[in-house]
Amino acid sequence: MIAPLDDLLIAPVVRAALAEDLGRAGDITSAACVDADARLKARFAARKAGVLAGIDCARLAIRALDPHAALEPVARDGDRLQAGAAILNVEANARALLSAERAALNLLGRLSGIATLTRAYVDAVAGTGAAITDTRKTTPGLRALEKYAVRCGGAVNHRFGLDDAILIKDNHVAACGGVGAAIRRARAAAGHLVKVEAEVDSLDQLDEALAERPDVIMLDNFSLADLRAAVARAKGRVVLEASGGVSLETVRAIAETGVDVISVGALTHSAASLDIGLDAV
Amino acid sequence: MIAPLDDLLIAPVVRAALAEDLGRAGDITSAACVDADARLKARFAARKAGVLAGIDCARLAIRALDPHAALEPVARDGDRLQAGAAILNVEANARALLSAERAALNLLGRLSGIATLTRAYVDAVAGTGAAITDTRKTTPGLRALEKYAVRCGGAVNHRFGLDDAILIKDNHVAACGGVGAAIRRARAAAGHLVKVEAEVDSLDQLDEALAERPDVIMLDNFSLADLRAAVARAKGRVVLEASGGVSLETVRAIAETGVDVISVGALTHSAASLDIGLDAV
Amino acid sequence: MIAPLDDLLIAPVVRAALAEDLGRAGDITSAACVDADARLKARFAARKAGVLAGIDCARLAIRALDPHAALEPVARDGDRLQAGAAILNVEANARALLSAERAALNLLGRLSGIATLTRAYVDAVAGTGAAITDTRKTTPGLRALEKYAVRCGGAVNHRFGLDDAILIKDNHVAACGGVGAAIRRARAAAGHLVKVEAEVDSLDQLDEALAERPDVIMLDNFSLADLRAAVARAKGRVVLEASGGVSLETVRAIAETGVDVISVGALTHSAASLDIGLDAV
Amino acid sequence: MIAPLDDLLIAPVVRAALAEDLGRAGDITSAACVDADARLKARFAARKAGVLAGIDCARLAIRALDPHAALEPVARDGDRLQAGAAILNVEANARALLSAERAALNLLGRLSGIATLTRAYVDAVAGTGAAITDTRKTTPGLRALEKYAVRCGGAVNHRFGLDDAILIKDNHVAACGGVGAAIRRARAAAGHLVKVEAEVDSLDQLDEALAERPDVIMLDNFSLADLRAAVARAKGRVVLEASGGVSLETVRAIAETGVDVISVGALTHSAASLDIGLDAV
Amino acid sequence: MIAPLDDLLIAPVVRAALAEDLGRAGDITSAACVDADARLKARFAARKAGVLAGIDCARLAIRALDPHAALEPVARDGDRLQAGAAILNVEANARALLSAERAALNLLGRLSGIATLTRAYVDAVAGTGAAITDTRKTTPGLRALEKYAVRCGGAVNHRFGLDDAILIKDNHVAACGGVGAAIRRARAAAGHLVKVEAEVDSLDQLDEALAERPDVIMLDNFSLADLRAAVARAKGRVVLEASGGVSLETVRAIAETGVDVISVGALTHSAASLDIGLDAV
Amino acid sequence: MIAPLDDLLIAPVVRAALAEDLGRAGDITSAACVDADARLKARFAARKAGVLAGIDCARLAIRALDPHAALEPVARDGDRLQAGAAILNVEANARALLSAERAALNLLGRLSGIATLTRAYVDAVAGTGAAITDTRKTTPGLRALEKYAVRCGGAVNHRFGLDDAILIKDNHVAACGGVGAAIRRARAAAGHLVKVEAEVDSLDQLDEALAERPDVIMLDNFSLADLRAAVARAKGRVVLEASGGVSLETVRAIAETGVDVISVGALTHSAASLDIGLDAV
Repeated sequence: MIAPLDDLLIAPVVRAALAEDLGRAGDITSAACVDADARLKARFAARKAGVLAGIDCARLAIRALDPHAALEPVARDGDRLQAGAAILNVEANARALLSAERAALNLLGRLSGIATLTRAYVDAVAGTGAAITDTRKTTPGLRALEKYAVRCGGAVNHRFGLDDAILIKDNHVAACGGVGAAIRRARAAAGHLVKVEAEVDSLDQLDEALAERPDVIMLDNFSLADLRAAVARAKGRVVLEASGGVSLETVRAIAETGVDVISVGALTHSAASLDIGLDAV
Repeated sequence: MIAPLDDLLIAPVVRAALAEDLGRAGDITSAACVDADARLKARFAARKAGVLAGIDCARLAIRALDPHAALEPVARDGDRLQAGAAILNVEANARALLSAERAALNLLGRLSGIATLTRAYVDAVAGTGAAITDTRKTTPGLRALEKYAVRCGGAVNHRFGLDDAILIKDNHVAACGGVGAAIRRARAAAGHLVKVEAEVDSLDQLDEALAERPDVIMLDNFSLADLRAAVARAKGRVVLEASGGVSLETVRAIAETGVDVISVGALTHSAASLDIGLDAV
Repeated sequence: MIAPLDDLLIAPVVRAALAEDLGRAGDITSAACVDADARLKARFAARKAGVLAGIDCARLAIRALDPHAALEPVARDGDRLQAGAAILNVEANARALLSAERAALNLLGRLSGIATLTRAYVDAVAGTGAAITDTRKTTPGLRALEKYAVRCGGAVNHRFGLDDAILIKDNHVAACGGVGAAIRRARAAAGHLVKVEAEVDSLDQLDEALAERPDVIMLDNFSLADLRAAVARAKGRVVLEASGGVSLETVRAIAETGVDVISVGALTHSAASLDIGLDAV
Repeated sequence: MIAPLDDLLIAPVVRAALAEDLGRAGDITSAACVDADARLKARFAARKAGVLAGIDCARLAIRALDPHAALEPVARDGDRLQAGAAILNVEANARALLSAERAALNLLGRLSGIATLTRAYVDAVAGTGAAITDTRKTTPGLRALEKYAVRCGGAVNHRFGLDDAILIKDNHVAACGGVGAAIRRARAAAGHLVKVEAEVDSLDQLDEALAERPDVIMLDNFSLADLRAAVARAKGRVVLEASGGVSLETVRAIAETGVDVISVGALTHSAASLDIGLDAV
Repeated sequence: MIAPLDDLLIAPVVRAALAEDLGRAGDITSAACVDADARLKARFAARKAGVLAGIDCARLAIRALDPHAALEPVARDGDRLQAGAAILNVEANARALLSAERAALNLLGRLSGIATLTRAYVDAVAGTGAAITDTRKTTPGLRALEKYAVRCGGAVNHRFGLDDAILIKDNHVAACGGVGAAIRRARAAAGHLVKVEAEVDSLDQLDEALAERPDVIMLDNFSLADLRAAVARAKGRVVLEASGGVSLETVRAIAETGVDVISVGALTHSAASLDIGLDAV
Repeated sequence: MIAPLDDLLIAPVVRAALAEDLGRAGDITSAACVDADARLKARFAARKAGVLAGIDCARLAIRALDPHAALEPVARDGDRLQAGAAILNVEANARALLSAERAALNLLGRLSGIATLTRAYVDAVAGTGAAITDTRKTTPGLRALEKYAVRCGGAVNHRFGLDDAILIKDNHVAACGGVGAAIRRARAAAGHLVKVEAEVDSLDQLDEALAERPDVIMLDNFSLADLRAAVARAKGRVVLEASGGVSLETVRAIAETGVDVISVGALTHSAASLDIGLDAV
């Protein structure tokens, strides 16, 4: 079971989503057309198959407008949903529920979309021993939630920001005069709880990096042959991460080269929302 | 030329994106590997063809970390970019530029992705007289920016929230006992600067709605034949909006039925980021 | 019954009002003079006759400091109150209630003051068919609440901001070279859910505007005779809004010219607070 | 000359006012009708006579949207303005200036309205030795600015919140069993930099309060005869503040009783905005 | 009993502390190692003797992550605690409690550290009639809480900011050309609820200040002999505050000179946290 | 040279500190006693010897109130200062400088206090090969700044929050039924860029932990003999961190046992502020 995020981390995003949608006058359609004390029973359900992520967002959105709403979850984050599968049953004040609907669906759809795409990658490499990981190519303001959705899809998280791990890229290498020198400078600066990863773009550079024993080496845009060669040279001494232009078509072959981790920017920068709806029952 | 959003509306999003990425310790890699006073000349460039949106986000992100950065824009929001096309030349403090890079690219990529997809829909209906419009299926926190990207792609905006226009949907119709009654209740409540739109899902319901003369009628999931029939019945008295399951494959045929506007949720809920990079020069 | 604003929109204003009043040390008088567990029964009551608006603000202010306060509303927003009329009965922790009192009264008094003045204008035009509307001349930070108070007084809202309707004023006309050109430019830019209003200051300009069929034409500082002429020329094709220097003395005569809407800046920029007090019982 | 508030205290209010007005799409009228690089020369001027307060709000609002605007102040806060008097000359980007106009005017008008009304009270008691002071009956969110406007009108400020002075009122007296006991409890709790004021509503209660020598005694709703008697009994040992139902008609007679300070809630809860406009030049 | 601060003033600090600690991924250790529905019974207890302050911070931190946590306070703010003394018994969701632990302890430890050091100073002057007071040398963001902790330690608060009392220091004296002139300028500007304090650094300057009768005179870095001389000269006409380099070793002798108040910056700028722990039971 | 934090991370703390000090009326003493256009030349200088940290806070505080202040830094963060050493020369508007003084000094003093104490620990272990590190026992709201100050003192940072590394403590061990099981559960959940540290409190538990090869093992409250035994058993396979009750008296002996890192809570929870002043020149 996926460990949920604390409400404290989600609630500000949910409230901002609601405020953005309510604007300065609130839901003027429901105010005009729905009685103040009308009740509505409805169900969040998947319209397409996918993997659920973000059910707490829906709960918090509805409760923000109707603290007494009755909510009955039917699925859990990380669950695989068939098309039509129920997610959450709700009975609430009708105006409140209609006003919260879009904010809830936007978060639920986006996060489930990411979880669904992630799960496809994870399934594609099943049995190879390779893990799928994300990148920092997330939506501004939603990184914690989108990284959580990646976990719901069965993948592991890469670093969360510029501050929680060292990742040496080409500009850093250029500034230091070589990947080896860059790793040494990074190691000297890093605390004992910070991992050091270095990106290399050739087998020669890999050798230079291996000599410094970083925690992780990122093999950027390597051919399958070079990935295999890299795995052979590393001999398990460091974690190897394949990166660059990975697609659902190519990911299994990459995994079969023996790399440990494959990072996929598409998980967050190109996932379409999962189609989820709210239907009156 | 697309009227830009005020910096006042963009800056909080940009600063939040930077803060989210910098975390509690900032860019520890650049701090370790790049000298404090090193300079970097670089260029934002499109790696795939597309339509630009969000150049002000890149400017504000870089200036937030280096107020004295030299910036030379080479393209403008709304421009069609070839693969490889330059967008923005930068010379700045190297640490600052590397620290701002991901936040800038995430915003630029997402917004340009939306503009690019929007432009594809707009181009697909060229010459038909139909306009493409968006929905409220946007990313929480980014609605103003994503709706701006839709404008950069050549489409027009639907309402921005629950508060700036009335849109009567099935639950409102149910609550009022009919679409005609719902429109009357809405009209009575609405100010003189608020438009009233009603969603209908059949030609019968269309007739009931037409009798009340709302400003716009949304034809939800109508077949092409029914869309044509609707156009004939409306005789130009109201704006007709086609909605529901519109794709790049189906949009031209829909436009050719004579509807005025076609709303496409995919513009914002399913656009992949445009691949834009920052390259040292 | 007036549709209330969502607590989500009101609570930040209420909490800011309380924080502003509590400062850095809180209510030092009550802390010194009232026992920690003392209870207080009290009643919010109107000291002058008026129209109620903002009872939710009082509720949220008290509950913010004593979540277990017992509250019994005796009136509803939009109600006409006699001098002395009870509004809300409270029993709460005494310190909490005394600490929340001023924030609650300030909001309640200001909003009820606006509702009261609005009601006077609405009553003054009763039977004429003209509606009263507000302007953007509101208190910074309180626009949503003040526009709600206007609704409580029986009037309708003009636009809520610069973004939810187009209003072409003299500087826009000057920039475009004429009101007709301005309306055309506005129409071309506006989405299908945005109304277009143009301000004119003479009958000649009215004719130019009428030719473009905006949704609303604002007749700025027209004499009664010119208002009547304008109504005759428009023949019901557009909504006509009279504006400029409207007072309680002049409003009925203006309404009797046949205009549809009369906008009154004084509703929000010159309403005195309604005198409401909290009395121990 | 009035000491201005720090920009740091004003800027958040100004930015919130602009954000509230710009909404999610910004000034769509100016975007449609005014060219991006058009310039506008204009002048803020008083349309009615009054006292100026809040010129820094106008400056900050315009600069927030056009950092390079040229601003030439022609008057200073606290100045008495004739009808028609110029306040501030501006040359700025036309869209920016038009977008900032209403936020600037709303703040300028409200604060100048308060300063104007305050000045009328201050003038009414000229020569009597009595000072005019305000109350906590201010607009939520604007207390610091409104109290500043009171200073611009020539009056002094009462306490700014519940935390910066002790003010014993009837409920505190009731809780302590008498005004004397309440003052003793307050004195025991108060730091050496906190003044203690007690409200009394009769001459008997005044005697009880005088015996405890608070810093200030508030004479609430005293007749003129009782005010004179109170002045005689106090013999200058404490500051005497008259309060309750003070109007421009009654304030001079109150001042002539010899009280030291007269508090007037109307300064902030009932001031109409001063009519100030922005005219293109 | 110490009057507690309103939760409204504490909760933002507590939530910020939690958010700072939870970061973008939350408590990844507890998520990995503790079951989602595990419960934990634990006790906050003092590991060293001291004075308690901040128990509401612990309550709010735990409830922010587990609204249903059972909390049983065993001590109250202001209580003297023996080493090992229990403070608060908790039973809560285990993950939530472990996640909130550090934020709760950091606030509790810091505030209790201040209360403990304050109490030592207060005890040191017991029986002399002198009060101990704090300064503005507090931790940014925590002034209200740290000043509250000072009260829990038995001392009184000096001013809370630059705005709630006048304190004339050397630069102000220099700007006015003398302490007497400065007091006169300050008196003329101050409202009737603002106290005026002037700092002097010699007996001559004291005489100049006494002639203007400020409310308080601060004797800065006076020798014991000069403090005694100052007390003799003031003859009880003003409050005398000794200041500058006060330590636990010197404070009693200072108090015995007869000054009324002794201000001690160390209370807040040099207090070590009290060692408090959370132990499973 | 210490890599500075981005202004973007510091500025909100500085502005909050200023706002907290300015309150609702600003610096009323300087407003009364100092002319609006007076200038002040002054120097920040250390009154006691120490290590500087936080000079950017002083710069940002002054510039926030006077954007045109002339600032000349004379020292850099991380520098050892003699008593009396100059830090920063300033020439600014006098009111602005006096208003910013306390906020600047409070931040500068606290951070330099931490850097100074840290440097004492670092110096104490010089030549042993052991590093000093901090804990999460920081001031709420200031963690990023206080951890930066630790770096200025020559130490390395432990984790920044609950989210950037795994640290298994006694409650986690209890929940998993053993430290070995806990490490396995943690490893399974952790991404490839997250280090895993486990706390042990006996040599037996150390053996169990060593078998699972975490990245770091924390030896909690070990005797010197046991620390030496632990170093011998670990044989360099993992990083060993000594923790618990470390003081300046005991730290060198601990370092000489051969442990790699020593964590010291006192660096942040018990550092007194460094005495820094601002003197007119």
